[in-house]
Amino acid sequence: MSSYAKRLWLEEDLGDDYRWSYRVSAVLFSGRSTYQEVDLVDTPTWGKVLLLDGKMQSTEADEQVYHELLVHPPLLHHKNPKRVFIMGGGEGATAREVLRHASVEKVVMVDIDQVVTDFCSRHLERNTDAFRDPRLTLINDDARVQLEVAPDESFDIIISDLADPLDGGPCYQLYTQEFYRNVVLRKLAPGGIFITQSGPAGFLSCKEVFSSIHATLRSVFPAVTAYTQHIPSFCDVWGYNMAFRDADQTLLTEEQLDSRIAQQLGGRPLTFLDGATFTGLRQLNKVVREALESEKEVYTADSARFIHGSGLKA
Amino acid sequence: MSSYAKRLWLEEDLGDDYRWSYRVSAVLFSGRSTYQEVDLVDTPTWGKVLLLDGKMQSTEADEQVYHELLVHPPLLHHKNPKRVFIMGGGEGATAREVLRHASVEKVVMVDIDQVVTDFCSRHLERNTDAFRDPRLTLINDDARVQLEVAPDESFDIIISDLADPLDGGPCYQLYTQEFYRNVVLRKLAPGGIFITQSGPAGFLSCKEVFSSIHATLRSVFPAVTAYTQHIPSFCDVWGYNMAFRDADQTLLTEEQLDSRIAQQLGGRPLTFLDGATFTGLRQLNKVVREALESEKEVYTADSARFIHGSGLKA
Amino acid sequence: MSSYAKRLWLEEDLGDDYRWSYRVSAVLFSGRSTYQEVDLVDTPTWGKVLLLDGKMQSTEADEQVYHELLVHPPLLHHKNPKRVFIMGGGEGATAREVLRHASVEKVVMVDIDQVVTDFCSRHLERNTDAFRDPRLTLINDDARVQLEVAPDESFDIIISDLADPLDGGPCYQLYTQEFYRNVVLRKLAPGGIFITQSGPAGFLSCKEVFSSIHATLRSVFPAVTAYTQHIPSFCDVWGYNMAFRDADQTLLTEEQLDSRIAQQLGGRPLTFLDGATFTGLRQLNKVVREALESEKEVYTADSARFIHGSGLKA
Amino acid sequence: MSSYAKRLWLEEDLGDDYRWSYRVSAVLFSGRSTYQEVDLVDTPTWGKVLLLDGKMQSTEADEQVYHELLVHPPLLHHKNPKRVFIMGGGEGATAREVLRHASVEKVVMVDIDQVVTDFCSRHLERNTDAFRDPRLTLINDDARVQLEVAPDESFDIIISDLADPLDGGPCYQLYTQEFYRNVVLRKLAPGGIFITQSGPAGFLSCKEVFSSIHATLRSVFPAVTAYTQHIPSFCDVWGYNMAFRDADQTLLTEEQLDSRIAQQLGGRPLTFLDGATFTGLRQLNKVVREALESEKEVYTADSARFIHGSGLKA
Repeated sequence: MSSYAKRLWLEEDLGDDYRWSYRVSAVLFSGRSTYQEVDLVDTPTWGKVLLLDGKMQSTEADEQVYHELLVHPPLLHHKNPKRVFIMGGGEGATAREVLRHASVEKVVMVDIDQVVTDFCSRHLERNTDAFRDPRLTLINDDARVQLEVAPDESFDIIISDLADPLDGGPCYQLYTQEFYRNVVLRKLAPGGIFITQSGPAGFLSCKEVFSSIHATLRSVFPAVTAYTQHIPSFCDVWGYNMAFRDADQTLLTEEQLDSRIAQQLGGRPLTFLDGATFTGLRQLNKVVREALESEKEVYTADSARFIHGSGLKA
Repeated sequence: MSSYAKRLWLEEDLGDDYRWSYRVSAVLFSGRSTYQEVDLVDTPTWGKVLLLDGKMQSTEADEQVYHELLVHPPLLHHKNPKRVFIMGGGEGATAREVLRHASVEKVVMVDIDQVVTDFCSRHLERNTDAFRDPRLTLINDDARVQLEVAPDESFDIIISDLADPLDGGPCYQLYTQEFYRNVVLRKLAPGGIFITQSGPAGFLSCKEVFSSIHATLRSVFPAVTAYTQHIPSFCDVWGYNMAFRDADQTLLTEEQLDSRIAQQLGGRPLTFLDGATFTGLRQLNKVVREALESEKEVYTADSARFIHGSGLKA
Repeated sequence: MSSYAKRLWLEEDLGDDYRWSYRVSAVLFSGRSTYQEVDLVDTPTWGKVLLLDGKMQSTEADEQVYHELLVHPPLLHHKNPKRVFIMGGGEGATAREVLRHASVEKVVMVDIDQVVTDFCSRHLERNTDAFRDPRLTLINDDARVQLEVAPDESFDIIISDLADPLDGGPCYQLYTQEFYRNVVLRKLAPGGIFITQSGPAGFLSCKEVFSSIHATLRSVFPAVTAYTQHIPSFCDVWGYNMAFRDADQTLLTEEQLDSRIAQQLGGRPLTFLDGATFTGLRQLNKVVREALESEKEVYTADSARFIHGSGLKA
Repeated sequence: MSSYAKRLWLEEDLGDDYRWSYRVSAVLFSGRSTYQEVDLVDTPTWGKVLLLDGKMQSTEADEQVYHELLVHPPLLHHKNPKRVFIMGGGEGATAREVLRHASVEKVVMVDIDQVVTDFCSRHLERNTDAFRDPRLTLINDDARVQLEVAPDESFDIIISDLADPLDGGPCYQLYTQEFYRNVVLRKLAPGGIFITQSGPAGFLSCKEVFSSIHATLRSVFPAVTAYTQHIPSFCDVWGYNMAFRDADQTLLTEEQLDSRIAQQLGGRPLTFLDGATFTGLRQLNKVVREALESEKEVYTADSARFIHGSGLKA
């Protein structure tokens, strides 16, 4: 009571019958866009937390891990990544990690919500430098539209940092076979790599969307690597799928990966990821592995598998 | 979900095994003093709410009723109230109601916490005029000290708008027989009236502090009138005790009270209180009446009856 | 932690943005009927609590007050109550209070849910004697149907202990002008009295249903008396409306009421109600009084005023 | 509302400012021992949940994974496990998994709380057969005492399924260097293997107890293998440490492990564990790996590193 009396709680449903709550010590900033409410709060548990529509989007405590795993596996597996396209990622952390790679010359980041990108570029201290980096082009628009219209241009890396393909959600189209085949694959340069965050991937949750995203990518790309990691503030293990454009691209060994990290990042090692870590993350457990192997459902423009109550990374 | 997504809740314990929570739509202002945290939040349920140390102090939805019942019964029963002393009341609403009486010439309000009075004078729109009224003298100090030292001065009305006499709380001394006899009674001018908020007064809660405050006052003053009213944001019926300095003072009839309201308040009737209302409020139910009649415990400098987990008006 | 470690909470919405929770120390019994779930739980705050569909229906801590106020005002105002009809009241406490009156010869209690009446007759110790009283006839059916069909029979007292006239709720028809005129009024014997629980009646909540129930009764009966009392476990002040069948019936004075209690109840006084109490309860405050006076809306078979999220006494 | 109206929630603190809640659809059984409260509840989220002192102990949804990882790695790495000692494990699931191994001839399970073992042997359907297995000897006593006194006896496998070494908790002594050296090591037969659940092991939580348990074991045993897996109902990644008695014992390859599973378990494969899974689980990420490598603190009879607010497996 003496040192911390305010009893403001943020409550987040994790399912219909299941929720968690964490104390909020201060509401630092609040705003509202056409699309959503945007808040930055401070918490004893997670440090500063970015909320979109009252949902945890990213926390000071663990966003580094989430973003390292989204960005560095594809950039490290590419021989010489120069041009990178980010779908979503308005928070700026994805761009921040991309820009650590010395070879990168151009980053196009397309996030629909200008209020979010303005807010984060001013208030998320960890990411403000990234927003000011001259290599970054920030566009507030529909990511699909911008990727399609990019004139005569192709990218070495395309990163999808979007909300899960939720029931009725705006992002569903960006997870379909048609989008992967007609837009993503065409916009990847030779040797290009696509990665997408892929929703919850625990042994209880991997069939919500992770397995179908994986199956959809396998139906389009010659090689797809799935890996997972527990992200505490998402209250689950999280999945990623990395797809190679060409059949001759291969996964690096632990030693090769460590060596690439040393070369590409100017001597600044990553916090969480190294060669040994990545080998562990892509060695999936039996339940998840069998779920991926047996998944028949592919997301198409006509069909959907909906996720309810979890996978809230928007 | 569409129009109101933020799910920030303020949680308040009502007892060890009992609590309530209400949604907070915005944290409007926050501050911290030597004594406590001070916040103003907006809520769908109560409108704007002032919080001290995270506890509901007063709400836009029902503070008018609480303050009318604290201020107007004593001022209306006094023949010509000119000088008024307020112990506590930093929020400003008690002063606001006092200043509605045309006869009032001077109000001395003593609240220990300057951060609270500064905050409320700027941010509580309903009370800003009261803080600027030239008849008001605001002092940030211990109410007891200021009442004792007020040189050669006496008051027509003394209002105690303090926290309950909680276990170890700073206000306990201001509810004792010694304080009433040695300070309050001496500082009341002939015909003077003292009133104090008196904590929870429901049939389940009236023995927590209400009955002992009543017994203590009866041991000092010639006539004490108790009355109660349910205050929704306090989650209980609340008690008041009004004490007359002199034996010849009497309660007004319904008609006399209505007539006094018409005279004193410049033609602006009260929202909640009128003659008929007051008659009803002081007609206590059997359980509460018997609790007051049978109460033997008097608060003295040496003894205390403590209240736990309720009566949080601070 | 040491003595009471279980952290089971029962959570009840009090509105869209407002709820309370109380600890449950034990789930004593559980059942399910065609209509609802039925549970009896023990709690540190309220003692044993009867829940219907997870909502607090009645608590050991304050049901006595609720039921005294529902039953004794009409029975005490009647000269010689012999025949009583109870609509709802499956818990048994209403019947228990009725049966305390020595003059009562027959009580017909009609509650739709046999699971509730079976459950309460076995598990609510305070009420088991009432269920076994030979003067009680218990019928599990629709109260309206049973009241209509009761052959050639009339009642001195009709008590409505039903759920509020909720949006879409099954009880709405039992609060309409048509029902009062065509059924209740006809089934009352000369000198008969009707009473109904009337929902939340605080200064913030009295227009939800209380004022319209009052207006509806006034449109049918020659005299209607409203009174209110805070019921802690309902988290609000609660309203009652008592209607006289005939124009020559009058309210008793405090002394007459005390004298009737002494006569009728075999020397066992009530816990909460006496003459002085009743005078206080029917002396309404200005806000509620004006709400009743100005209410134009009468519940008819065609119209409704709905209540949302409160007034959940079912 | 229609199909599931009861709103009973079980609330569990995950830290001082952080908690979760899940709906309880039924309290199936409740009891109390000298040591703790014991409850079995049903929940929509986790299926049946065993609670000790109101804390989640094990759930139908994921206990299989927790117990497979505690039991099968040591039994599969042992050439011919015949005699097994279980410290704790009163729920019965650890014994159940041990008894799946055809080579096992004797299992001694020592859990202090007879109420828990009686309760689980009757009410946890998944484990009732294990409790009745003639190879099982169940003793309700202090595990340390029983392990020390076991006359002239040694074990092939010793499994520690105890509460974390919590501040002031009864289990701390069973995690010390002295206990491992003087009791466990002496009671292991040649080729013997010890395993202990080792608390939270996520990148944010691995220094709470996991790294020190690991360091303590390494200071006593010639080879210690750490591995981790996310257990949803523990709301974190969980750690295990497996220690070999002798320097010549080695880890199996994926293929060897798969082959052992086929031999030992009578053709019934495990749900979660296989060779590939185990390789992934012991390939720790950089943060956890470095935490284990750099940990200097060893639990001794005199010192402790305490865990607060998490790691509640008791």
